[in-house]
Amino acid sequence: MNKEGILIVICGPSGVGKGTVCKEFLGKNRNIKLSVSATTRSPRIGEVDGVSYHFLETGQFEKMVENGEFIEYARVYENYYGTPKAEVLKNLHNGEDVLLEIDIQGAMQVKSSYPDAVFVFILPPSLGELRDRIVKRGSETEESLKLRFGSAYDEICKIENFDYFVVNDDIEKAVRQLDCIMMAEKSRVLRNKENILENFKEEI
Amino acid sequence: MNKEGILIVICGPSGVGKGTVCKEFLGKNRNIKLSVSATTRSPRIGEVDGVSYHFLETGQFEKMVENGEFIEYARVYENYYGTPKAEVLKNLHNGEDVLLEIDIQGAMQVKSSYPDAVFVFILPPSLGELRDRIVKRGSETEESLKLRFGSAYDEICKIENFDYFVVNDDIEKAVRQLDCIMMAEKSRVLRNKENILENFKEEI
Repeated sequence: MNKEGILIVICGPSGVGKGTVCKEFLGKNRNIKLSVSATTRSPRIGEVDGVSYHFLETGQFEKMVENGEFIEYARVYENYYGTPKAEVLKNLHNGEDVLLEIDIQGAMQVKSSYPDAVFVFILPPSLGELRDRIVKRGSETEESLKLRFGSAYDEICKIENFDYFVVNDDIEKAVRQLDCIMMAEKSRVLRNKENILENFKEEI
Repeated sequence: MNKEGILIVICGPSGVGKGTVCKEFLGKNRNIKLSVSATTRSPRIGEVDGVSYHFLETGQFEKMVENGEFIEYARVYENYYGTPKAEVLKNLHNGEDVLLEIDIQGAMQVKSSYPDAVFVFILPPSLGELRDRIVKRGSETEESLKLRFGSAYDEICKIENFDYFVVNDDIEKAVRQLDCIMMAEKSRVLRNKENILENFKEEI
């Protein structure tokens, strides 16, 4: 019996450090596949097409939406972001775990189609600390800083839709916590019941 | 706000090594309290009253049942076993985690009153290995060996009532898995929602 992989969805407010946490987590867990999102926003310095994102024209993106080729997609600020369906499903079906690092709107869409996915919300140690991190990143204008920071509390209020929370006050600790969450999910009876009973039945 | 502790219930067929796993797990996690069960069976060599079990007379035990002083109790083979309620509730209320190592009938009673408890089933690597372990323990007569081993598969079939399973093929690995299950449960949004929202609200 081919066991399905686990879909883990990681969210959190802008500036919380999701990207760094996910990168370290994937570095320690080479078997987990990162789903590469598609977006219509411009690449930032250092971002590589097909690795950081699939960078698409708006027209291409909208065509894929029409064809139902996204697990989730959303318009955030002025751009589209989305998760192409085909590769994620192929990996899960092959028993490989897949990580999605997406926004909260997207996570809620995933939840409606994939209730078995594991939803993790990354929290900042405090709102003050979050603001400092956004400012330090330096890629924001005064306007976009206000926009991003202003929505942080509203986003945190959506945490009740998530299974787990991880406070990112220390990257290593956050990664260890994600490791444990994955191990615990792999130990869930619900995900393994048929396999367990099948194994012991064969022996009788 | 005084946060409730987590009640973790550990079960598994006779001979699977629950006792050893729990002992190692508690040794690494001194903050988790072991609930001492009450029983009417005779002490085995080396067992200490009030530490291994509260050893009670049948009359005393039945009086406590009448008074509703057990979270769960059951008659297994010829003896009563039960978990006195008072101490468990006091510890949980003080924010301390409590471990119950009980049988499956008992676990199902706990589940009906404490659905927030975490239910873990310890599995043997195989039924053959389980039989070997029971024989090696050497405290069984031929008759009681048959009785214990005969019910193992039926007990494993009740695993669907449990949240997690841990295969005890290696004690250290089993203990690490329990550590992760506890850490994951502590990271559950459902157990912490009010605290999280309260903390961030205070900052606004």
